[in-house]
Amino acid sequence: MEKLSVWALPGMPEVRAGADLAVLILDAVERTAEPLVDGDILVVTSKIVSKAEGRTVQADDREAAISAETVRVVATRPRGDGGVTRIVQNRLGIVGAAAGVDASNAEPGTILLLPLDPDASARALAGELRRRSGADIGVIVSDTLGRPWRDGQTDVAIGAAGVEVFDRMQGRVDSAGKPLVVTLPCVADELAAAGDLVKGKLSGCPVAIVRGMGRLVGPLTLPGAASIVRPAEKDMFHLGADEAHREGFDEGYAAGLAASR
Amino acid sequence: MEKLSVWALPGMPEVRAGADLAVLILDAVERTAEPLVDGDILVVTSKIVSKAEGRTVQADDREAAISAETVRVVATRPRGDGGVTRIVQNRLGIVGAAAGVDASNAEPGTILLLPLDPDASARALAGELRRRSGADIGVIVSDTLGRPWRDGQTDVAIGAAGVEVFDRMQGRVDSAGKPLVVTLPCVADELAAAGDLVKGKLSGCPVAIVRGMGRLVGPLTLPGAASIVRPAEKDMFHLGADEAHREGFDEGYAAGLAASR
Repeated sequence: MEKLSVWALPGMPEVRAGADLAVLILDAVERTAEPLVDGDILVVTSKIVSKAEGRTVQADDREAAISAETVRVVATRPRGDGGVTRIVQNRLGIVGAAAGVDASNAEPGTILLLPLDPDASARALAGELRRRSGADIGVIVSDTLGRPWRDGQTDVAIGAAGVEVFDRMQGRVDSAGKPLVVTLPCVADELAAAGDLVKGKLSGCPVAIVRGMGRLVGPLTLPGAASIVRPAEKDMFHLGADEAHREGFDEGYAAGLAASR
Repeated sequence: MEKLSVWALPGMPEVRAGADLAVLILDAVERTAEPLVDGDILVVTSKIVSKAEGRTVQADDREAAISAETVRVVATRPRGDGGVTRIVQNRLGIVGAAAGVDASNAEPGTILLLPLDPDASARALAGELRRRSGADIGVIVSDTLGRPWRDGQTDVAIGAAGVEVFDRMQGRVDSAGKPLVVTLPCVADELAAAGDLVKGKLSGCPVAIVRGMGRLVGPLTLPGAASIVRPAEKDMFHLGADEAHREGFDEGYAAGLAASR
């Protein structure tokens, strides 16, 4: 039986601005009895990519930082603590709370922004890991996102390199011979989720290694995680229900006034 | 290093109405060299639960079946083929396309509905598997769902028994000592996702076994996957943007007419 193995890489040090993640990861790998092999996929928490890239700001700038990272406000809702939860689309097209700006696991007094270009970060890291280790590996940069309709969060891929983000099944058929036309499993998100099961949020293990999915590993020129993001104009939930209702009401009110003249 | 292992259970036969899934699964397990052990989590595709429970209807009743399963229409959009994509909330509270009604992997000429109560199905299956195998295992019943803002689908948990659906981190702190108040990882969905990586949609392997997550396995009285579903009134995306806009427009138009009288 083909088995998938997933484990958290132990021994990663605290990552500082300017750190070479490939060196830190390979040093940690070397201290384990498990060298990287062809087909391994490394799921790397975006926080250490942000830290290495110096994407840190002072904590008292949090609201300003969220605004700076926001391209479009999707929905807002007052929180119990007097603040406002902002669901926004960020520069990367990703829709999430607070544009990925997060204080957890950051140095006290600081908050972390998402990497500027997680696909580029993944590509650089995967390239360097391949060069130094000689193993054809893939890299997923993961972040923790909430979602509509379901409580809690799961880890998803915000960056990817050298790994298929979708399991391309077009043209294939199911066990009864029917074409699977609609199904497009987002394996990059599923890999990020599997990585989160072993990394946890508390263990200080920001890197998971997934072994046994080599069929998904390919050239560094494969499309990155940006290809997962659905453009707003194609999304049925591009705006919060209350926000869309309010827009509609204002337009309707003006039309009602005009019609009665 | 603690490792998570995930593999697809080979040798599952085609499941017929009335089949005893516990017997089929344990027979298949017995033919492998890997007996179930305490802490194993079985990720079972909802389709075989539906088949065993006889939740099959004739394919030409598809639109009627979707309507019958629908509690609330969340959003609709015309498809290229002349049909309409319906995002609906079903009896279980789950929001998804076509209320989970699906023709893939069903017998030709038939379509499958979701199990009536996937948590109850998971509980019955987990209880029977525990009794017969003597191993304290957990069961996740998985389904494939699309999601807003991101293309493709991932597998999520629509039923669960004997396994924590959330990794309860309340009151815990991150590596810098800050409380992780908001984070509530939905490990049930992440387990379903990990299972999908090995099951795929084509392999004829409807059961995955996850080993190494025993810390999540507990009594059969743990909350099921129904606890993952966020009630519509608490959800910022309880209605499609176009639908909410239209409702708002109609209300605004009436208000505008009234104001000008």
